[in-house]
Amino acid sequence: MTYCLGIVTKFGLVMASDSRTNAGYDQVNVSRKMYTFVQKGEKVFVLLASGSLSCTQSVITLLQRDFDKGEGLATATGMYDAARIIGEQVRRVADMDRPSLERDEYKFNVHFLLGGQIRGERPALFLIYPQGNPLQATEESPYLQVGETKYGRPILDRGIIFDKTSLEEAAKYALLSLDSTMKSNVTVGPPIDLLAYEVDQLTITHQRRFNAEDTDLTKIAMRWQAALRQAVARLPTIRFPAAPQKPEESIQLVETAGGETTS
Amino acid sequence: MTYCLGIVTKFGLVMASDSRTNAGYDQVNVSRKMYTFVQKGEKVFVLLASGSLSCTQSVITLLQRDFDKGEGLATATGMYDAARIIGEQVRRVADMDRPSLERDEYKFNVHFLLGGQIRGERPALFLIYPQGNPLQATEESPYLQVGETKYGRPILDRGIIFDKTSLEEAAKYALLSLDSTMKSNVTVGPPIDLLAYEVDQLTITHQRRFNAEDTDLTKIAMRWQAALRQAVARLPTIRFPAAPQKPEESIQLVETAGGETTS
Repeated sequence: MTYCLGIVTKFGLVMASDSRTNAGYDQVNVSRKMYTFVQKGEKVFVLLASGSLSCTQSVITLLQRDFDKGEGLATATGMYDAARIIGEQVRRVADMDRPSLERDEYKFNVHFLLGGQIRGERPALFLIYPQGNPLQATEESPYLQVGETKYGRPILDRGIIFDKTSLEEAAKYALLSLDSTMKSNVTVGPPIDLLAYEVDQLTITHQRRFNAEDTDLTKIAMRWQAALRQAVARLPTIRFPAAPQKPEESIQLVETAGGETTS
Repeated sequence: MTYCLGIVTKFGLVMASDSRTNAGYDQVNVSRKMYTFVQKGEKVFVLLASGSLSCTQSVITLLQRDFDKGEGLATATGMYDAARIIGEQVRRVADMDRPSLERDEYKFNVHFLLGGQIRGERPALFLIYPQGNPLQATEESPYLQVGETKYGRPILDRGIIFDKTSLEEAAKYALLSLDSTMKSNVTVGPPIDLLAYEVDQLTITHQRRFNAEDTDLTKIAMRWQAALRQAVARLPTIRFPAAPQKPEESIQLVETAGGETTS
């Protein structure tokens, strides 16, 4: 399993990924899922990959080969075009591998997140589906996830606001979202790759890998757990009505005696 | 979709469920998923149901019919036996409906949570699978969930400790877990039924239904969101190394220069 996420705000982008891959339950490996393509001062692309490692590697290899020749992503004039270029490579690998995979009942199931900026445009964040079509993050939905997405979502839903969340805060939310996922699902695991990109930087300066024993990561996870417990303790005690509100009675109860039981 | 959870601690049980049911995306209804069976001073059973409403209703109807005649759950002499009695009814309904459902490619997919206590025993919490077999919560895994379980799990993983978490705190965790799930998945929705059962009470006194507009629920959700954001703001800022740690370099980097980059 995998968990990758991207956050886009007014201030830039945060991209984060775990590094655990597994083939079945008894073959677990470490493999990075974050790839960067940079033309300093012109273009920055950050790609996060989930799905069959064999297929995502193929896509990355083809993208890298083109990029090194000044083709493909190197020629993209906008982030939407960049997302389409990645989608084309996904379709190319699908054409090569999908029939053989499906014959043995494997799914062709690669997903990519693309974050980045091209000079003259705003930073943007896309999800590219296994079918090659792109979905863009918006101000209302300023983050995108791939892989094991559910455990890490509530903290993002409560925290990320396009206009307000600073890059520093967004980086913390990304790390907490990954930490929540790792705590609940062992098939998502460290090292964690984290990258923060500030608007108009057009190069990559803030990138860090956290290993399992990273003291900063451990400290943040411990402090977070303590802060959550404290926050729960400080919430008002839940009041129960004098007579138990059985489910079948309660709609009635709330309408007629709501004031007594809930305020 | 559905989300139900049960928590068992040294101090008793907390059971909670949402009330949204849907047949497809355009037929959404409210239906309770919490059922109680009580012989005051002798036995308390709380059942939470997820899966096809038609099938879970059948199981409950059969259990209720027996209980009212002094049979079935009314005769259980221990919580394990009670879980087995429910499993038997699940199998009975499966025998009646499963072949016809499967012919039209529906799955027989009912899950029940059973929490309760029988005089002379400790309170206990079980999950009963669609196949009828029971799984018991333990001191190491003191909560069980059915339905849309992932969004609401991280908060439980961080908070619930069998020996330490009071019933009041457990009730808050259950409500927060449901609130997180409702925020991330619209197919889980209010009213929320919440029940807290204290060890050796052998009756039900603390039961409450929260409608969507319940002021206590709204207040808790808002205060929780504010507390989370504040907790994130208070976490130490994430430091990035002077030179970006590219994923491919980082294992090396951490081993040779970890002190410089992470502390």
